[in-house]
Amino acid sequence: MEPPVKPIEWLGDRIRIIDQRCLPLKECDLTLETAADVAGAIKGMALRGAPLIGIAAAMAVAVEARHWTSSTWDEFEARLLAAIEMLSATRPTAGNLFWALDRSRKVLESHKPGGSPEAASSALIADAIAIYSEDLETGLRMGRIGVDLIREGSTLLTHCNAGGLATSGFGTALAPMYVAHQRGMNFKVYADETRPLLQGARLTAWELKRAGIDVTVICDSACHLMMSRGAVDMVFVGSDRITSSGDFANKIGTYGVAISARAAGVPFYVVAPVSTIDFDLEKGEDIPIEERDSAEVTEISGVKVTPRGVPAYNPAFDVTPAELVSGIITEKGLIRPPYPENLAGIRP
Amino acid sequence: MEPPVKPIEWLGDRIRIIDQRCLPLKECDLTLETAADVAGAIKGMALRGAPLIGIAAAMAVAVEARHWTSSTWDEFEARLLAAIEMLSATRPTAGNLFWALDRSRKVLESHKPGGSPEAASSALIADAIAIYSEDLETGLRMGRIGVDLIREGSTLLTHCNAGGLATSGFGTALAPMYVAHQRGMNFKVYADETRPLLQGARLTAWELKRAGIDVTVICDSACHLMMSRGAVDMVFVGSDRITSSGDFANKIGTYGVAISARAAGVPFYVVAPVSTIDFDLEKGEDIPIEERDSAEVTEISGVKVTPRGVPAYNPAFDVTPAELVSGIITEKGLIRPPYPENLAGIRP
Repeated sequence: MEPPVKPIEWLGDRIRIIDQRCLPLKECDLTLETAADVAGAIKGMALRGAPLIGIAAAMAVAVEARHWTSSTWDEFEARLLAAIEMLSATRPTAGNLFWALDRSRKVLESHKPGGSPEAASSALIADAIAIYSEDLETGLRMGRIGVDLIREGSTLLTHCNAGGLATSGFGTALAPMYVAHQRGMNFKVYADETRPLLQGARLTAWELKRAGIDVTVICDSACHLMMSRGAVDMVFVGSDRITSSGDFANKIGTYGVAISARAAGVPFYVVAPVSTIDFDLEKGEDIPIEERDSAEVTEISGVKVTPRGVPAYNPAFDVTPAELVSGIITEKGLIRPPYPENLAGIRP
Repeated sequence: MEPPVKPIEWLGDRIRIIDQRCLPLKECDLTLETAADVAGAIKGMALRGAPLIGIAAAMAVAVEARHWTSSTWDEFEARLLAAIEMLSATRPTAGNLFWALDRSRKVLESHKPGGSPEAASSALIADAIAIYSEDLETGLRMGRIGVDLIREGSTLLTHCNAGGLATSGFGTALAPMYVAHQRGMNFKVYADETRPLLQGARLTAWELKRAGIDVTVICDSACHLMMSRGAVDMVFVGSDRITSSGDFANKIGTYGVAISARAAGVPFYVVAPVSTIDFDLEKGEDIPIEERDSAEVTEISGVKVTPRGVPAYNPAFDVTPAELVSGIITEKGLIRPPYPENLAGIRP
């Protein structure tokens, strides 16, 4: 099965990404040649989604390594550690970012005894490509596990974009939908528009529509009514970080969806690779919540919508407690409560 | 105490309103000379808010009556009944609209025996002005009752605009805030932006800021996080229709705010005049929910944000069950549960 979309590509000495800020009305690419380019793209949200941020960060270290292969080991190592530090400061909530950068750091360390920038560079490139390929496989696997929850005629709801565009191509929350569609199942998806950056209206709607899946956009605040009126059979969302107890961070608003799903008796599933799980963190309240520029709220499409002099507060994520989660779909299987025990069982 | 804003004014032979679609960056007025003008303004949301819609509808019948005073009674009556019918088709959820039009219809009927369009017209004008003045008094009264719930240093959250701009001038949910501010109390307000039409970001922020009240705008989806983190002490919202059991309709998203408020132990108050209560309706599920044009979701400030060919669903209201409501502040007092009994006690 081919992935529905290709948001990132390793081109040997540079990285091509879909510039997601252009979607859905235009499709444009960006070429990134340094770690700084990638850090800028992550911070500016030309690419986003925890798994894709992880892949891009690993590719960023790899592309940076290529630039410094003729340096001394000390210079090479210093440049790469600086790149890793810069990349890790881009998005504080994304678990996969730190996971991928840790992997790169370990590859770098393992080449310190030999002291060959050339060899380390090759290994970093190979590892970045491996992270990408593993994510493709992981996505497909999560899709094949999650599809068993979908019934013919189901109506699903999702928040933000946890799709192909948030990963190497199959997505997390949307992966079961792509597999269901490939199997010829009929189902319908409501996509929360996901203010402030409208990843649902722009990205989820774009990629599902492109794949031929029946998708309807609603305002974030409409999901509560939809669930209370029986219009939604189940919720699939992605995650930016899951703690060892099953609490998880995801795009702002996810917690509200989860509370309403519980109130309406609608099953609520998180779909995320094991790399999203931060086994060193227990409580959701310990996940750092990124606060973004208030202009994302006060301006829409460049048009100011609030009165002059009125501030806006713009937390990018919220934390949903494990007790509201019906199950966590990972590439290692569908994890059910109790999460502390059952997540520990899949710890790599 | 002067009202903080004057959204509507009876000018003897026409009506002046603030065109709320211009706010917050421009301030422009509209002059309405016929019932059709007013119906268009209500439908197009140049004015909105259940109490203000009621006032405008009564003024619309009055302005229309003035046009037909030299007709026969039969023509006069037919024209006015047609105007009432047209006006009642503008916004199906607003309880005050039907309440005000019923009042106009009764004034009209009471003049049938005399058969004098001139006399009926004078009575309709007097009644429209009375509805306006009563609303001013009602707003101030609700403000003075609701203010007792606010403590020095409180942080309040509100959804949509239930302010001066939704009424004759003091508002419903915002009335207690204006009274608190006039008394020199310090408090802070979070205004949900309220997609799709951004009444919170545009109107609530505008009128609170204008009055010198500390207001911060958040995305609708951020209220759940704010409440779960203890950043909100109480919620005040308005209502478009309250049933005899205390279930109530309000702007889409209110139900989600209420569920999260309950989950976080945050008191949740509805502020509405008795005219919003539909004593003939028992269950919230029987309140008709207006569905508005999907373009309100798919376009923001005239810019298309969804992919071509993807539909949007745009319910304008949702219904919150009485069990999530800590109290209903009316001009007759703060009504606590059990609502069926306690609301019946204030039935006019």
